[in-house]
Amino acid sequence: AVTALNTEMVFIMNSLLFLVGGFLVFFMAAGFCMLETGLVRSKNATMQATKNVALFSLAAIAYFLVGFNLMYPLGDWVVEGWLGGISPTVLEPVGVALEDVDDIEYASIGSDFIFQLMFCAAVASIVSGAVAERIKLWPFLIFVVILTGIIYPIQASWSWGEGFLDEMGFSDFAGSSIVHAAGGWAALAGVIVLGARYGKYGKDGKVTVMPGSNLPLATLGMFILWLGWFGFNGGSQLAMGTISDVADVSRIFANTNTAASGGAVAALILSTIVYKKPDLTMVLNGALAGLVSITAEPLTPSLGAATLIGAVGGVIVVLTIPLLDKFKIDDVVGAIPVHLFAGLWGTMAVPLTNSDANFVTQFVGMAAIGIFMFFASLVVWLILKAVMGIRISDEDQVTGLDKTEMGMEAYPEFSNS
Amino acid sequence: AVTALNTEMVFIMNSLLFLVGGFLVFFMAAGFCMLETGLVRSKNATMQATKNVALFSLAAIAYFLVGFNLMYPLGDWVVEGWLGGISPTVLEPVGVALEDVDDIEYASIGSDFIFQLMFCAAVASIVSGAVAERIKLWPFLIFVVILTGIIYPIQASWSWGEGFLDEMGFSDFAGSSIVHAAGGWAALAGVIVLGARYGKYGKDGKVTVMPGSNLPLATLGMFILWLGWFGFNGGSQLAMGTISDVADVSRIFANTNTAASGGAVAALILSTIVYKKPDLTMVLNGALAGLVSITAEPLTPSLGAATLIGAVGGVIVVLTIPLLDKFKIDDVVGAIPVHLFAGLWGTMAVPLTNSDANFVTQFVGMAAIGIFMFFASLVVWLILKAVMGIRISDEDQVTGLDKTEMGMEAYPEFSNS
Amino acid sequence: AVTALNTEMVFIMNSLLFLVGGFLVFFMAAGFCMLETGLVRSKNATMQATKNVALFSLAAIAYFLVGFNLMYPLGDWVVEGWLGGISPTVLEPVGVALEDVDDIEYASIGSDFIFQLMFCAAVASIVSGAVAERIKLWPFLIFVVILTGIIYPIQASWSWGEGFLDEMGFSDFAGSSIVHAAGGWAALAGVIVLGARYGKYGKDGKVTVMPGSNLPLATLGMFILWLGWFGFNGGSQLAMGTISDVADVSRIFANTNTAASGGAVAALILSTIVYKKPDLTMVLNGALAGLVSITAEPLTPSLGAATLIGAVGGVIVVLTIPLLDKFKIDDVVGAIPVHLFAGLWGTMAVPLTNSDANFVTQFVGMAAIGIFMFFASLVVWLILKAVMGIRISDEDQVTGLDKTEMGMEAYPEFSNS
Repeated sequence: AVTALNTEMVFIMNSLLFLVGGFLVFFMAAGFCMLETGLVRSKNATMQATKNVALFSLAAIAYFLVGFNLMYPLGDWVVEGWLGGISPTVLEPVGVALEDVDDIEYASIGSDFIFQLMFCAAVASIVSGAVAERIKLWPFLIFVVILTGIIYPIQASWSWGEGFLDEMGFSDFAGSSIVHAAGGWAALAGVIVLGARYGKYGKDGKVTVMPGSNLPLATLGMFILWLGWFGFNGGSQLAMGTISDVADVSRIFANTNTAASGGAVAALILSTIVYKKPDLTMVLNGALAGLVSITAEPLTPSLGAATLIGAVGGVIVVLTIPLLDKFKIDDVVGAIPVHLFAGLWGTMAVPLTNSDANFVTQFVGMAAIGIFMFFASLVVWLILKAVMGIRISDEDQVTGLDKTEMGMEAYPEFSNS
Repeated sequence: AVTALNTEMVFIMNSLLFLVGGFLVFFMAAGFCMLETGLVRSKNATMQATKNVALFSLAAIAYFLVGFNLMYPLGDWVVEGWLGGISPTVLEPVGVALEDVDDIEYASIGSDFIFQLMFCAAVASIVSGAVAERIKLWPFLIFVVILTGIIYPIQASWSWGEGFLDEMGFSDFAGSSIVHAAGGWAALAGVIVLGARYGKYGKDGKVTVMPGSNLPLATLGMFILWLGWFGFNGGSQLAMGTISDVADVSRIFANTNTAASGGAVAALILSTIVYKKPDLTMVLNGALAGLVSITAEPLTPSLGAATLIGAVGGVIVVLTIPLLDKFKIDDVVGAIPVHLFAGLWGTMAVPLTNSDANFVTQFVGMAAIGIFMFFASLVVWLILKAVMGIRISDEDQVTGLDKTEMGMEAYPEFSNS
Repeated sequence: AVTALNTEMVFIMNSLLFLVGGFLVFFMAAGFCMLETGLVRSKNATMQATKNVALFSLAAIAYFLVGFNLMYPLGDWVVEGWLGGISPTVLEPVGVALEDVDDIEYASIGSDFIFQLMFCAAVASIVSGAVAERIKLWPFLIFVVILTGIIYPIQASWSWGEGFLDEMGFSDFAGSSIVHAAGGWAALAGVIVLGARYGKYGKDGKVTVMPGSNLPLATLGMFILWLGWFGFNGGSQLAMGTISDVADVSRIFANTNTAASGGAVAALILSTIVYKKPDLTMVLNGALAGLVSITAEPLTPSLGAATLIGAVGGVIVVLTIPLLDKFKIDDVVGAIPVHLFAGLWGTMAVPLTNSDANFVTQFVGMAAIGIFMFFASLVVWLILKAVMGIRISDEDQVTGLDKTEMGMEAYPEFSNS
């Protein structure tokens, strides 16, 4: 009888972990939205907010219709280990009895679904920041539907759906590669196809700084993302119904927090050294890079190791943000350094503290994810470009997307422009 | 022994659900505040923020002094099924023992109180958006005290306090009618008594657009409301201590999220078709309307049905926001379409997926709530108007409430006006 | 067997309380940041945001390296009851077994660490608001490291680490004195050493009002702090695994909420009487003062008593904010009235509802904490002033810290200045 009770409580606690993790990661959609809306110029802020609300909503629908079962085929693969099942999500019936539960050792389908959906939506949020200020709304949203309904779930199934990367032993706890680098690759493909914002890169190689219009809002976005990351990494323990699971979730909370701190401090110090002055946007991105870096393995590091792993993420951001400008890759909010570069670092750092992982497998997984995400995204972007065009005209970019595309200003009474 | 333990754990888990739900729904007060403050003109933003903080605080005190026991008489009615008990809230004693707990099958009084209080405050938040930019502070706050201490609790007792509507079989899971339409009715009465903002409707029938001053802030408000709704609907399961309860809470999370998504997407598409351009405020209100629509029954629908129920909410918003202008009903933030119209739709949609409900009873409940909320509010508004006046003079409206009523600007360094 | 299971579940529930409390109190860092960034002038907003992100990050690292074990020596004192242990934090191993858990009656180390860390960071956040708009970044951050790594943990160990104040029976449930007044004392010392902002106090005794640049953002900050306080006070119950503990956490939630409401309403009414007009910043600080006031004893008061205790906090704020100006103590955001004065009131109010506490012991604890926090902080501020200087030049204050120190404006497109 005690064992039966135990099973029931474990199921309840695991489901609760997903529900709490789910609403925390949901809130990251607001975090991304505020970060990005704060970092674009005010003439594009309404558009950026619109894109963020719309991308989350479309991701939610695409993931329920296609993505979830494509990502978690539960043995019912179309192509074993490579391509999952195709069917919409069906939840457990109302008032489900113990004997009708899908997986009594795990958690309710609904809680698992809501948690995993939020990860999928985060991938799209990453993209929207990089391609901001010059992409058309509708092609962007079509890309989001394909990304969240098909591309991301296929790739994620390889690891988390028990596909071929999982078989190989690839280890990415909460998704430095599977979520963050994946989003970064999709963003990189988009930015390349789209081209830089009008006026960003002069013919003489001059880079025009286009400062964000609302840094306090961007700071709020960063804090919300940090908050959400407790759910992102903590929930990825997937269980909270035993002493060892709850202690592991606790370790993950502590490591996640200290990695973010390490990233922020490293970026603050390094940006002060390199640019002579502290740079708030670097500090914000440094904290986020710290979070991305620890996401592949937030459990095994000590607090000191986690701080250092995060700090390296912060260093990567400060060094690579100007680098992108050299290649005329115009990433408006720094999403590629934060999510892609720090994500790759996080993935390769796993074997440093987790003896079950090895560098070769990590590299293979990282590369497989990268190649698929980049080229699948590239193909979709190129088709969208050919079929309907994806770029706002230079003239309309100068006027701003809010006036030309939406007829609605974000701050109608403030802006001097 | 196992059973005893079970009882204790169920009590703990139920209380925990209310505590988590409680802080999530509390945060909706911030969501309403940001939404409304972002949608008013900057000259009224300090006033709008002040009203939102004050209304929540007063609601909290009124609900503890009178509202809670009026709403949940637990058999101790003044008029059986119609008018509850009159006494302040008393919590369980410190360190309460198992045998002294008020209802061992349910949850701690404090957790139930904090959860229910947040619903009551939400009703007042709904009103404050509709009557913004021309209502006087103190009459508004007096209305809030009467609304949250007396009017709402009496009405809510009919269903949730096991009054006559509950007897009839009226079904409103988390309050599409009991909370949202109720707030909308109170707002409608207020807007009618108050009249439109100065300059809103010209004599020639021309409608002047008065755009919100800070759309990113309004977007943040919408996201916070969406976040809070997981607690609003999920917590309304009222239990999380069994497998079937936690699986139901999970269903509710998933359905709530997808209904919001459906509402946002429907509003995005329809507003683009109708107005030729996508409209952020419609998308925000569409998401909220989706949430309101699913609130009467977030448990029984499938994900697909929930998406459609929410989408209809989004359609309602796009179609009825301009309709209100035809009747010169000046609802500053769209609270009436979102909370009243979508709330009515949600109430009537219950029988579509829940066979325990029927259209006649739903209609009777909806009508009873509407008639009481509208006319009780109307009487209070009329008395306030007669006794102390509720409307800011046209001149002061032109100057803005922040300067005339408060002597404090929301953005003293930004505004061009 | 039932008992064993019980132990396990209690450990899980207690750890969960700390994790949820931890992320809620974490979010207070965002709340402080928004409150302070909204209350400074726009020319210093980037700097204020930078300080808030950096101070949290440095606090996290300092507390893990030194602070946590200094505060919780667990019997391993350097000086018994006065000076704790010196060693970095070590978490329980990955996948810890029941028999290897540090304290099976309590909670996982990681969950306790993350919860306590957030309190430590809050102390630094309190300081940053008071010294805003004229302090140099790096000396401020060095102060933060010493404050969070050494000064606060030593003082906190006296009560919460079972040091000499705990022995004496000093009672401060969640830290009206230990956290809030402590931060206020550190801030007061800083403000005195630093001097007022350039232009704040004229030679003729004239006080120049320097209005906050973004009151809606400050309002958001207040709401986030209120939200976080549910974790702050609720989590300080330190246990949620029995009926009586969860019912106590529920009481604490309800009392915390009503005290904030009492503070806001009292400040609204009193500020209207005193200044003839309602004052939003007073209402915000009134709510916060209500929260600080109830923090020393959120469990034993009735709802009515809690409302009154909070209301007195609100009154204190309205009366003492202008008082500080008389002494030319320039506290930019009102941190000293809110956290120090209301904190002292809260500490002395404990015996009013808790018969285990007495006024003499409360006074001794309050004084011991105050003397240590003020003078230890004063010494550090004076050394920093002597060694590297802590004050921005008057000229640079006029231009604003964002341009002179950071080269990055918070709202580059809005500001008229």
